[in-house]
Amino acid sequence: MASVAVLGAAGYAGAVAAALLHRHPELELRHVMARSDAGARLDEVHPRSRVPLVLEEPTTDLDVDAAVVAYPHGAAAPVVADLLERGIRVVDLSADFRLRSAASYAEWYGEHPAPELLDEAVYGLPEIHRDAIRDARLVANPGCYPTAAILALGPLAHGGLLEDVVIDAKSGVSGAGREPSASKHFVAVDETVTPYKVGGTHRHTPEIEQELGGDVRVTFTPHLVPIAHGELVSCYVTPRVQLDFAALYRDVYAPEPWVEVVPGPPGMQEVRETNFCRISVHGDPRTGRVIVFATIDNLYKGTSSQAVQNLNLMFGLDESLGLPA
Amino acid sequence: MASVAVLGAAGYAGAVAAALLHRHPELELRHVMARSDAGARLDEVHPRSRVPLVLEEPTTDLDVDAAVVAYPHGAAAPVVADLLERGIRVVDLSADFRLRSAASYAEWYGEHPAPELLDEAVYGLPEIHRDAIRDARLVANPGCYPTAAILALGPLAHGGLLEDVVIDAKSGVSGAGREPSASKHFVAVDETVTPYKVGGTHRHTPEIEQELGGDVRVTFTPHLVPIAHGELVSCYVTPRVQLDFAALYRDVYAPEPWVEVVPGPPGMQEVRETNFCRISVHGDPRTGRVIVFATIDNLYKGTSSQAVQNLNLMFGLDESLGLPA
Amino acid sequence: MASVAVLGAAGYAGAVAAALLHRHPELELRHVMARSDAGARLDEVHPRSRVPLVLEEPTTDLDVDAAVVAYPHGAAAPVVADLLERGIRVVDLSADFRLRSAASYAEWYGEHPAPELLDEAVYGLPEIHRDAIRDARLVANPGCYPTAAILALGPLAHGGLLEDVVIDAKSGVSGAGREPSASKHFVAVDETVTPYKVGGTHRHTPEIEQELGGDVRVTFTPHLVPIAHGELVSCYVTPRVQLDFAALYRDVYAPEPWVEVVPGPPGMQEVRETNFCRISVHGDPRTGRVIVFATIDNLYKGTSSQAVQNLNLMFGLDESLGLPA
Amino acid sequence: MASVAVLGAAGYAGAVAAALLHRHPELELRHVMARSDAGARLDEVHPRSRVPLVLEEPTTDLDVDAAVVAYPHGAAAPVVADLLERGIRVVDLSADFRLRSAASYAEWYGEHPAPELLDEAVYGLPEIHRDAIRDARLVANPGCYPTAAILALGPLAHGGLLEDVVIDAKSGVSGAGREPSASKHFVAVDETVTPYKVGGTHRHTPEIEQELGGDVRVTFTPHLVPIAHGELVSCYVTPRVQLDFAALYRDVYAPEPWVEVVPGPPGMQEVRETNFCRISVHGDPRTGRVIVFATIDNLYKGTSSQAVQNLNLMFGLDESLGLPA
Repeated sequence: MASVAVLGAAGYAGAVAAALLHRHPELELRHVMARSDAGARLDEVHPRSRVPLVLEEPTTDLDVDAAVVAYPHGAAAPVVADLLERGIRVVDLSADFRLRSAASYAEWYGEHPAPELLDEAVYGLPEIHRDAIRDARLVANPGCYPTAAILALGPLAHGGLLEDVVIDAKSGVSGAGREPSASKHFVAVDETVTPYKVGGTHRHTPEIEQELGGDVRVTFTPHLVPIAHGELVSCYVTPRVQLDFAALYRDVYAPEPWVEVVPGPPGMQEVRETNFCRISVHGDPRTGRVIVFATIDNLYKGTSSQAVQNLNLMFGLDESLGLPA
Repeated sequence: MASVAVLGAAGYAGAVAAALLHRHPELELRHVMARSDAGARLDEVHPRSRVPLVLEEPTTDLDVDAAVVAYPHGAAAPVVADLLERGIRVVDLSADFRLRSAASYAEWYGEHPAPELLDEAVYGLPEIHRDAIRDARLVANPGCYPTAAILALGPLAHGGLLEDVVIDAKSGVSGAGREPSASKHFVAVDETVTPYKVGGTHRHTPEIEQELGGDVRVTFTPHLVPIAHGELVSCYVTPRVQLDFAALYRDVYAPEPWVEVVPGPPGMQEVRETNFCRISVHGDPRTGRVIVFATIDNLYKGTSSQAVQNLNLMFGLDESLGLPA
Repeated sequence: MASVAVLGAAGYAGAVAAALLHRHPELELRHVMARSDAGARLDEVHPRSRVPLVLEEPTTDLDVDAAVVAYPHGAAAPVVADLLERGIRVVDLSADFRLRSAASYAEWYGEHPAPELLDEAVYGLPEIHRDAIRDARLVANPGCYPTAAILALGPLAHGGLLEDVVIDAKSGVSGAGREPSASKHFVAVDETVTPYKVGGTHRHTPEIEQELGGDVRVTFTPHLVPIAHGELVSCYVTPRVQLDFAALYRDVYAPEPWVEVVPGPPGMQEVRETNFCRISVHGDPRTGRVIVFATIDNLYKGTSSQAVQNLNLMFGLDESLGLPA
Repeated sequence: MASVAVLGAAGYAGAVAAALLHRHPELELRHVMARSDAGARLDEVHPRSRVPLVLEEPTTDLDVDAAVVAYPHGAAAPVVADLLERGIRVVDLSADFRLRSAASYAEWYGEHPAPELLDEAVYGLPEIHRDAIRDARLVANPGCYPTAAILALGPLAHGGLLEDVVIDAKSGVSGAGREPSASKHFVAVDETVTPYKVGGTHRHTPEIEQELGGDVRVTFTPHLVPIAHGELVSCYVTPRVQLDFAALYRDVYAPEPWVEVVPGPPGMQEVRETNFCRISVHGDPRTGRVIVFATIDNLYKGTSSQAVQNLNLMFGLDESLGLPA
């Protein structure tokens, strides 16, 4: 049975990854590590995880087959490089290896700490890169918004039908992390909806565009909503041709166990704490636009259960093993 | 002092209108009426209103100068016609007199019950039709979404700059009315965001297009959010020319007491239970789009305080008298 | 493998029971039935259940070993009687068989529809009546408030230490059922806490007192809080003697797989969508009172996962099989 | 017209006080001051306040008749002492002058920084100490929980009827202040109810007991609920005699403009952003207990509008002037 460590297990994403791995029938969670809270038991810091392991001081000197790295961008890359050198396969939850181009990374994040690894990193969206993920040493787990947006727009993009794309996204607060801040104070979030990173300035923008391919430029506007976790992207496209888009989506996603194409707009509750992505497609006959909604749980399919899905692929297991439904 | 009756005062909008009129320094609230709850005191049905008047059985045989009619569309028109015949000026909160064209009304709502009144009805958005409102016998109070959308896009529309318009709207649940239903059950709304009336099917669409003028066609998608009252419209436009849009908006709205143009995205809390509309304008240099946010309280500027603003104009009072700030 | 039907599967509790049974490794969910929504698939009515079975018109003419009856009190009893006659064992989620005394039932609910069954009905709280449940034909699944309150106060009651009991309970809205009503409208629940059934008038009162035993009389006050599901009881007791109450609780519940005694006050999130009950015990040295908190998910340990726990016992399975952790 | 400064205007309470004073017809808000955010306009930091004054660096060298001090306990006392020396009357929102006994203060907060002022400080609950407030140089504005609890229990206390008191309190998150922290993170508060400071350890306990008088000892347990502002206390008393308690409360509070005695349990929405306290009284005939609910907005009657009510009294104005209804 392959063994796994989670580095950065005290954050929301790391704790969910640890909880899923702890109950996984074919992967063994051997270590949980965190710079903060080291010495405490994970189920004290995150009771809902019910992982009774003690958080250890992080190290890369590990007796495991794989590691999930849940560090901020910039901090992740050197740790990832070190793990790979020691022969440990990595699923990296940060943004450090998602963009294929070091130049693009530099534009959005600053100089890349380990550009030599960009070539071999595989973008960890199984529905798009399943085969490459199986053999990858380094999987760059997608951002939560890109997961939903790429699944929502991929079938149009791959048909060359994408034009004039607006993505209006709504996310629960856990997407912004566990660190307390003024913008995450209950009183600031309650009873309001807050757009942020407006005008194409959110760092998930280049990631979405890269995976949609070609020269697509999207207007991506995230909004914070008074919800703990969950994410909805409302996508507006003026396609080059009209066809039965709903049928296209049903065809594309028929073989996918974790993408559900439904007739009516999907709701976040329907995917909460699961690995599902729910999608619906609608025409607007008055304007010719196509409207695509996709909803995921940002901490699950948007991050941590997707990481486990990737680990399943990397270790030749049933892709759906241990994923929450 | 002009006297006013509110018909339909047991609903959310009617109760807020009654509360504002009850405390108004220059208008006298003489009657509150409702088909349901007649015989109860309004402050028992809506304690927050603190209006100690008893809800009467509705009648149009009234000793008042003006009436606010808070009935559903279809039900409102005959009552409005009757009130006008008796010489009572009306602010109608329903959709019955918002569309200038009986044909358009028929397309979206069914045959019009009183088409002969359409010509004289004035669309009650003071920032656009202030002068006509002053002299109107019949003011059609705008819908909540159109109020926000027209204030958000008017400056572009009137400059001939509107093209390719997407309006992604988020509304609190009170916008759907007081009648219990499955979609308004707390458990259905909590922890989710729900798109509805997708694909250009929401009846506020023609109202928005009429006031933006010309041949503009918008894709308008409302979403229900877990909030009691408050509304945000996120508008995406590809303008024909680039200019300093923020400066344009500041200029257009400088004389307006109830429209605030702010640098950062506005929040619903900032306008909650006030007559304010807050707007911000942003460029997306990567795509050339302009993004405009507007937020209002759907029960105040979106409905009932705007009705009082209209009454102030109709009776020659200071437009801002008695409006909540 | 024992087969089960759920009657009343369109409600919140029935749907959760069906979802758990559908995924249960050693019980087969054979039928889901509902007076409303018959003909629809359960996963259309409750997408989160992911049960693809069609809701059938209810009947007791069933080829199953057991049934979960999720009907309102009064409506349940005749159906339960019918099922038992046909040799089908029953877990009844209603209040019809929880009170051992027909006189007490009459006082709180009206004349009992099937008093002859009261003697053999077993109160389905496994932590108290485990052995009797194993052999029962008819298990009366406890109410959600009593589940939390009895687990919170049982160790004191059984030690003869209970006196002067106040139970201040807070519940999410799903506890009030799926039927739309004014009190469950999002706008009525949001941003407030509402006491209801004040003054010892809530029907869970006699159920709590019966199981705490003897002549204990409790003041039980439920409050509705703006939460979908989850329940917290804050219990105040003036014990006859002082001792190490936390140690007592840890001892009593050490063998129990689904009761967790923790040092700090427990939170609803920690038990959401699980079968756990979390308890903490605190002294108030200034007044001599003992304060006990217990939290459960009202739809899980408070109703439906507890029903599955009871079925496990009834069919000789591992008590924890298929229960959500 | 008396002039006022608010020190600590960047916090929630200070900002509300400033907003109310800015719109007050007979008091002039001359300065707003804050250690943080100095140099910013108050309506940038708290847009909802709509106070266009610039936050100044705090000083006591002020040309005003009165000051509202919104500092933490310990930090407030020296500033208050300095202001008084300069002839400026003070309403202090901190706990520094609420307890009459320096020994009691030492027990709960540490050594008192200015014990010589305790004798002249008046506890600023107008319903209890109205006359003394009129002449006071220093008014100690009550805590939010004590405001609700004392108004709820005062009529029983003053009748010598209090015994065996449990106060189970529920508060919105703004009561914990604007400083970001883990316990105020949206994700920590959402969908849960959290007891805190259990076992008689909350510092509002001695304040409640002092004002209820005599040797009353209360068990006071605060709970955080997922609400921005609003507070409900559920009080349980076993009175020495039985009488018509509701009538008693109606009599006691008949002359009070800001206390409403209602038949059914009061809701937070009914008092949100107002100076009202709503109370209901209920018997529990099965146990002989009396249950009293009181609800206030913790930032209004619980803090800042009560401060304005006190200023009105101190300057001989109509007590209700400028208070939000």
